[in-house]
Amino acid sequence: MAKSRFQPAWTEVAPAPDSLRSIVKYGDPNGFKHPSHGWYDMMKEEFGMTDADFQKKIEEGNEKIVLNRTVNLSSALIEKLQTIVGKENVAVDDYSRVRYAYGKTTEEAMELRKGIIREVADAVVHPRDKEDVRKIVALCAAEKIPVYVFAAGSSVNFGCRPTKGGITLVLSTHMNKLLEINELNQTARCQPGLFGPAYEKALNNAPELFGTKRRYTCGHFPQSFEYSTVGGWVVTLGSGQESTYYGDAYDIVFSQEYVTPVGSFKTLDYPGTATGPKVNDIMKGNEGTYGILVEVTMKIFRHQPENTRYFSFMFPTWEKAVEASREIMQGEFGKPAVYRISDPEETDRGLKLYGMPGIVDKFLIAKGFKPMERSLCLGSIKGDKSYTEFVKKNIRRIAKSYGAIYLSEYPGKKWEKTRFTEPYMREDLQDFGIQIDTLETGVSWADLHRVHESVRAFMKTRPRTMCMTHASHFYPQGTNLYFIFITKTTDVKDFQDFQRGIIDSIQKNGGSLSHHHGVGKMIGPWMEKHLGKEQMAVLRALKNHFDPDGIMNPGGQLGL
Amino acid sequence: MAKSRFQPAWTEVAPAPDSLRSIVKYGDPNGFKHPSHGWYDMMKEEFGMTDADFQKKIEEGNEKIVLNRTVNLSSALIEKLQTIVGKENVAVDDYSRVRYAYGKTTEEAMELRKGIIREVADAVVHPRDKEDVRKIVALCAAEKIPVYVFAAGSSVNFGCRPTKGGITLVLSTHMNKLLEINELNQTARCQPGLFGPAYEKALNNAPELFGTKRRYTCGHFPQSFEYSTVGGWVVTLGSGQESTYYGDAYDIVFSQEYVTPVGSFKTLDYPGTATGPKVNDIMKGNEGTYGILVEVTMKIFRHQPENTRYFSFMFPTWEKAVEASREIMQGEFGKPAVYRISDPEETDRGLKLYGMPGIVDKFLIAKGFKPMERSLCLGSIKGDKSYTEFVKKNIRRIAKSYGAIYLSEYPGKKWEKTRFTEPYMREDLQDFGIQIDTLETGVSWADLHRVHESVRAFMKTRPRTMCMTHASHFYPQGTNLYFIFITKTTDVKDFQDFQRGIIDSIQKNGGSLSHHHGVGKMIGPWMEKHLGKEQMAVLRALKNHFDPDGIMNPGGQLGL
Repeated sequence: MAKSRFQPAWTEVAPAPDSLRSIVKYGDPNGFKHPSHGWYDMMKEEFGMTDADFQKKIEEGNEKIVLNRTVNLSSALIEKLQTIVGKENVAVDDYSRVRYAYGKTTEEAMELRKGIIREVADAVVHPRDKEDVRKIVALCAAEKIPVYVFAAGSSVNFGCRPTKGGITLVLSTHMNKLLEINELNQTARCQPGLFGPAYEKALNNAPELFGTKRRYTCGHFPQSFEYSTVGGWVVTLGSGQESTYYGDAYDIVFSQEYVTPVGSFKTLDYPGTATGPKVNDIMKGNEGTYGILVEVTMKIFRHQPENTRYFSFMFPTWEKAVEASREIMQGEFGKPAVYRISDPEETDRGLKLYGMPGIVDKFLIAKGFKPMERSLCLGSIKGDKSYTEFVKKNIRRIAKSYGAIYLSEYPGKKWEKTRFTEPYMREDLQDFGIQIDTLETGVSWADLHRVHESVRAFMKTRPRTMCMTHASHFYPQGTNLYFIFITKTTDVKDFQDFQRGIIDSIQKNGGSLSHHHGVGKMIGPWMEKHLGKEQMAVLRALKNHFDPDGIMNPGGQLGL
Repeated sequence: MAKSRFQPAWTEVAPAPDSLRSIVKYGDPNGFKHPSHGWYDMMKEEFGMTDADFQKKIEEGNEKIVLNRTVNLSSALIEKLQTIVGKENVAVDDYSRVRYAYGKTTEEAMELRKGIIREVADAVVHPRDKEDVRKIVALCAAEKIPVYVFAAGSSVNFGCRPTKGGITLVLSTHMNKLLEINELNQTARCQPGLFGPAYEKALNNAPELFGTKRRYTCGHFPQSFEYSTVGGWVVTLGSGQESTYYGDAYDIVFSQEYVTPVGSFKTLDYPGTATGPKVNDIMKGNEGTYGILVEVTMKIFRHQPENTRYFSFMFPTWEKAVEASREIMQGEFGKPAVYRISDPEETDRGLKLYGMPGIVDKFLIAKGFKPMERSLCLGSIKGDKSYTEFVKKNIRRIAKSYGAIYLSEYPGKKWEKTRFTEPYMREDLQDFGIQIDTLETGVSWADLHRVHESVRAFMKTRPRTMCMTHASHFYPQGTNLYFIFITKTTDVKDFQDFQRGIIDSIQKNGGSLSHHHGVGKMIGPWMEKHLGKEQMAVLRALKNHFDPDGIMNPGGQLGL
């Protein structure tokens, strides 16, 4: 049967370098991940589609980018910028202006495919070092020119959108080095535009590159790892997939150096201090609205992959999975690194998509793990060799006591293999008018079920919509909820309405507006409702201090 | 010999309730801890004193407090305050005005013993609840009256000193309850004036008091535990003696509710969120300069004292002790709760003071652990039963590999028994003109030895001065240094000059100005030099936002 089945002609060539699609596409231009047979069948079934609907791609965005917009900066100013960074590092061509104005939201991709181009910067500047940034910010402050920052471009909330024009600084072109490892302190001083893989590789090879005794790891592996930077992690408050053990980006920053319109500074290098409100923390998550992170010293960890232990379980219900997870996180015996639990819809779709053999399913059902009730848990443990064994034993003991069955190391290992490539599938789906997107929230244990049920109920009001939820970043006090939704539409307004409804639902039901995607300009409008006017006023007071003329990432970022 | 030895007549009666000494004295009026024979002998030797010098106490401060200062508040305002909190909760008597103006610095005690009384508030107000605080702050904002806060009064940096008069709010009189335990979230909602012991007792007895399934612990045990409050821990950034495991006060705050001159707000209850700079963190450590903490939700932990494991080691040198400690903190197998290493002077004085038998000392020396080289390490481990065993095994393994000898559980257990009572000894010493005081700093591993050696060298420039140092709060990136100095003087200026010299030395050598005592008005003058003007400007911008008229703890707190 499999032999003769129809196979859509998924795109297998890199987009033309000057095309709209080159901006739409996630990640490596030559990287692809196509829907499995399971995925394909599921989409046909859910959306009432047939093979015929997968014959012809739509809105591929293969057209060349033509902007036809003037540069609203004087040639004198362009010259000043060129004097600072060198001619070769100032671009005003159409392609640069569009490329560096875009992140990776679904609606950006939908619009680009239709040829709709939103706001772009007037000029794109590639600073060579922090001195360049200092001079540029001083110039822009003097001339009141908006300054946006782009690093790896995986923002999913219009974080880099230059809504007010001006200039965009690209920090990943030159400012992308690991500068120093302090082995005593276990810290690494980085330039902000350092990409995840380059950072991790340098740390893994620290003995050869920096003469250290040990090998290190950054401990921060977001799904966007390949197309995100160290600076981006910090200024948007990202979380890696192993945050349950290593901490969120917030937790693994040791000190930071900023350039702002009112001056430059480096926060101090202390593991602990009681000297008033911590400027090092105040700056984290400012999303470019207070200043530009030009250097950051990160905590690093021992690289000992040989110690990793994997696990996976099936729980009879989502409720049991949540209870066991809480017990594990509050159990005071150590923590897993990756730890994920999938709600029943995600569990069953996942089992189908990843091709669980029928006999295993029958076995699970016979054991009482029923479809649309059962809940999959998988993960891994990092650390000292004895510790990973020790923690695994404890996790198994607790999972068992909540009725789980151990499913071997395999699902945890398999998940890890493809953990950065999931976003690649989006192009294939969009080629046939299907949108896949995610929204996420932080919740305490006490609020988890209410938020999950309410948001899910809202999503299910839309006909023919797949909705999968997991929790993947755990704390003693709670976790996150990560909602994945798949729906068939090419109508941007239709999509936006649905997406905004979900954000509304999260906010009204008491989830945080984001657990680790950040706010950007997309979620900004909900911020005051979420934080209340007194707390928004605190963020505004800091904004007014650092950026009195409103030139740093203006246009609604963070709701400012 | 011991039978016939001279014994000073250490004070054994509570100070008269209206006396200066009642304010000088630390802790329970009927609580005493006298110097041991070892201590007594050491003081005589170090300071060239004889039994004759311990015959007559000096400057005991037994005089009744007489203030003779007018109340610089209109009777109309006093009436307004009385209307808000009730007549019985507004005090303008001399004793109240002095008592609630004082913390526990050595120089305050020295001055009070001489009858010198510094600035006091005009009125002392005991708010009954957060509504009272809201009304009082609104009234004081309207009338531009300074507002100070007093809770347990163990500040060691003039944190509560009402340098500008006005009113002092005492939060520990009525606002001292544990309001709610959320067992799912493992959090406790507290009023700010809740004392450490009452909090811990309520958590330990949560099943009986709150109907929880489990017993809990607060995890925060500063030396001032008995005379400190939950709110004080948070607004001054305290650290408990078990912070290496449980985290600093900063880390164990879940959310906070504040009253400020520009409005009241409660931060949101999320274990993790990526919604911009975190107001919950911005407020921590504000030391009453931005607003008043009126409620705080703290993370709590399982209370399982039966699982505690103790340990102690002797290292051949301080350097080896530091290296082993770094290995333990970076080892990724879990963390001890209490963990302390003493430098050689503290080690040897400690061995004498706590009466190590001569035979043990001979044994240690024979094994190569030489006086004024060796370094004592002691501690305990909390958590799940299997975890405490597991972590202890790993700590023993590492300590041994750095040349340490295991000294049994006894020193760790013995230390724990008296861990809150050390400050009681100060009265006895001061009765004979001897001052004992402490200063402390946060340091990275890379800076530890430089700061330790430089500050110690400075302290040793003063003749006849004992100087003991330990590290007691550990992180993967470093630790703290806690300097204890004992010197003979009753000259306040002489003492201040020495103390200020130490702070200077800490600052110049790159230590943080405080690891967990906070800044107050005493260390405030070093803040701008320490943080730099750009970062001080951030603290000032927040100050201007919350408190435009400068009524909240004015007079140099935090260097503002």
